[in-house]
Amino acid sequence: MTLNPADAQVIESPTTHIPTHWYNVVADLPTPPAPMLNPATREPVTPGELAPLFASELVRQELSTERWTEIPAPVREAYATYRPTPFIRALGLERAVGTRSRIYLKYEGVSPLGSHKLNSSLPQAYYNKLDGITTLTTETGAGQWGAALAYAGALFGLDVDVYQVRASFDSKPYRRYLMETYGATVHSSPSELTESGRAMRERFPDTTGSLGMAISEAVEVAAKSGGSAHYALGSVLNQVILHQSVIGQEAVDQLRQMEPEGADAVFGCVGGGSNFGGLAFPILREVLRGRSHARIVACEPTACPSITKGEFRYDAGDVAGMTPLMQMYTLGVDFVPSPIHAGGLRYHGMSPLVSHVVHEGLMSATAITQTDAFAAGVLTARSQGILPAPESTHAIAAALDYVRAQEEPRVVVIGVSGHGHLDLPAYASYVHGELTDLE
Amino acid sequence: MTLNPADAQVIESPTTHIPTHWYNVVADLPTPPAPMLNPATREPVTPGELAPLFASELVRQELSTERWTEIPAPVREAYATYRPTPFIRALGLERAVGTRSRIYLKYEGVSPLGSHKLNSSLPQAYYNKLDGITTLTTETGAGQWGAALAYAGALFGLDVDVYQVRASFDSKPYRRYLMETYGATVHSSPSELTESGRAMRERFPDTTGSLGMAISEAVEVAAKSGGSAHYALGSVLNQVILHQSVIGQEAVDQLRQMEPEGADAVFGCVGGGSNFGGLAFPILREVLRGRSHARIVACEPTACPSITKGEFRYDAGDVAGMTPLMQMYTLGVDFVPSPIHAGGLRYHGMSPLVSHVVHEGLMSATAITQTDAFAAGVLTARSQGILPAPESTHAIAAALDYVRAQEEPRVVVIGVSGHGHLDLPAYASYVHGELTDLE
Repeated sequence: MTLNPADAQVIESPTTHIPTHWYNVVADLPTPPAPMLNPATREPVTPGELAPLFASELVRQELSTERWTEIPAPVREAYATYRPTPFIRALGLERAVGTRSRIYLKYEGVSPLGSHKLNSSLPQAYYNKLDGITTLTTETGAGQWGAALAYAGALFGLDVDVYQVRASFDSKPYRRYLMETYGATVHSSPSELTESGRAMRERFPDTTGSLGMAISEAVEVAAKSGGSAHYALGSVLNQVILHQSVIGQEAVDQLRQMEPEGADAVFGCVGGGSNFGGLAFPILREVLRGRSHARIVACEPTACPSITKGEFRYDAGDVAGMTPLMQMYTLGVDFVPSPIHAGGLRYHGMSPLVSHVVHEGLMSATAITQTDAFAAGVLTARSQGILPAPESTHAIAAALDYVRAQEEPRVVVIGVSGHGHLDLPAYASYVHGELTDLE
Repeated sequence: MTLNPADAQVIESPTTHIPTHWYNVVADLPTPPAPMLNPATREPVTPGELAPLFASELVRQELSTERWTEIPAPVREAYATYRPTPFIRALGLERAVGTRSRIYLKYEGVSPLGSHKLNSSLPQAYYNKLDGITTLTTETGAGQWGAALAYAGALFGLDVDVYQVRASFDSKPYRRYLMETYGATVHSSPSELTESGRAMRERFPDTTGSLGMAISEAVEVAAKSGGSAHYALGSVLNQVILHQSVIGQEAVDQLRQMEPEGADAVFGCVGGGSNFGGLAFPILREVLRGRSHARIVACEPTACPSITKGEFRYDAGDVAGMTPLMQMYTLGVDFVPSPIHAGGLRYHGMSPLVSHVVHEGLMSATAITQTDAFAAGVLTARSQGILPAPESTHAIAAALDYVRAQEEPRVVVIGVSGHGHLDLPAYASYVHGELTDLE
């Protein structure tokens, strides 16, 4: 159903200020999450063991149980150029679905990088600069994280060295161009530049790569740098979920201004968990305080169903076993997902914090097929203008399923983690009828 | 110079509401602009002569001398999903340049389409829907306008038929994918589908196309449709400049909140004039009322210097001579500019309103080379995160030249008409040292 002029409503975004602190959900959880373990000793990792990889303040944040961490002024300055991000009443999408439910989109695609990843790359670069580090190494899949770190490095004067999953390096040159425009160096992973890369190429000569392999390479380069380089991760870790809490804090404020009764359901896509945790945990805090009745749902692809089909156990974060062991939902570190277009959701594991919270029954999870996800993306594009990132379409599809199944009107919040302008070949493939489900 | 933590400042965007009316500069000009002429009779065009191409309200707006036109609610509803657009203090860019001047970016790249074009495609689709039209035809260069109209058509339930300049159709498939995702049909122009297209292919068999050729095709299809189709133009016309006035009205408000003394200089890129006129005319109104001392500068590419090297005279808007004659700065309707990456600036003419105002001495113009433009774009990316559209980089380059030449700190506003995520191959070519100046 298209827009009938008589139905038009002008709904302007409410005003919120950008948060002054990051929120750590660990402080409010009924039971504490299990610690990361040293893979050799299987003892909880110590700050000293993380120091070769991360800036001192990031190590503190990784292990912190404090509720609030003040956002440093240089990071807030950079946040202020694109935050608060819009909280959009999706009247067009509501009409397209034919629902009386009210749908809101928390939209991170207005970030200059086109996704939420900048929320964590900025503080990671900042704290490393403070510690005198000169180079950051990282991995990236589709390139959202690599590009965000490339810009943060340029802003704070750090070199950035990116190991990009080969499948994306070859098929998605635009994001490589973006990283290079910000001044970063990009390698196809597995590469010949690292011991772990060479080992993986020998073991799997035809591999298209995986995030788990690229992490091994980036960690190895940082660990062997003699102190000049550190490693930066765009998801999974507690520090990343902490930084992303700006999304959910803003959403809580924005929602309160639009809907005093709060939301009935909140949907976010999950790969490593950074966008989802960032949106969901400040809302979960409201639930735990009795101020919200929202049901919170993590939406993952059927092709990489770490929560809905994986096991909840300790596993490694990378193929070479260089990271600490983490208790999480995992498909096993050697799992190589099908080449679905939602590159940011192709990770074998899941943030330990998100895993813990789901395992405790405080949130639920669902899996969405690639074609259902793209159908929701095209519907959103044609009714709202926004072309969601392929990752974000999973949350939209799950939310629309929910709305359609409800008899009463509901209030629904959907996290839209980024725009899909650099994923247009995937959309073209869908609208040309060439896209299939991959599981 | 990168961000020194001690220098950080948190500057949040001020709050403005979206405008309720569009502003027509004609009402405030000391001398009226010359009318459009019928190419056959050389008499001023009448509303009846424009009726086969445009919706009745758009014909009224095209010829209107009234100062304000109320924005209809369905258009305001759609504006409210992305407006007001940010007005960003560019502290990063200031540091990168090493200036004490204060630079502000009025950034249209947060639109879901990635550019300002949506501001006019929405009302054009809306008014045509009201008139019972079922199909809109249009031309597009790089595809910003075509994509914006494709979405507006989807929103209001109209078919959209786009003639895309062949050079862009072949080299920029992402924007074609975007138009197709919104449901539009895209043809490479000149095509075999129209009389004018066939004539141009016969006359120039190797042509890479031009906006002037694509306009002829789109106008022909609408004119021959028997009343079911209308034509939509993304720039040049008074109606388009009118719709784009939301940019400048917001900027005037936002600037007032940040800088009570107002701006010293305002820079915008010009191709057909829509983004520039939209930003500049509400500011010019303040100048004409004695409330602003801003110098306003139109920034064009040296490869297509319609204002700085063209003649001010009556000329046709399209190659086949199907449009009215317009008094404007023109390089001649047969001028085919070099294939610079700023596709949106490759038009032989210039908005009659912008032309008139410059000719009257109320604004000035400058021309920027492609490499200077991209250098400014990369500097902006690395210091602010924003990757400007290649078109917008012309305004940034001119503004930075101005800032560097001033001895005293100034207040500068730059119109950034869109993001360049779909122009990344051009940026890659620049950062890899492969880009040259084309004139």
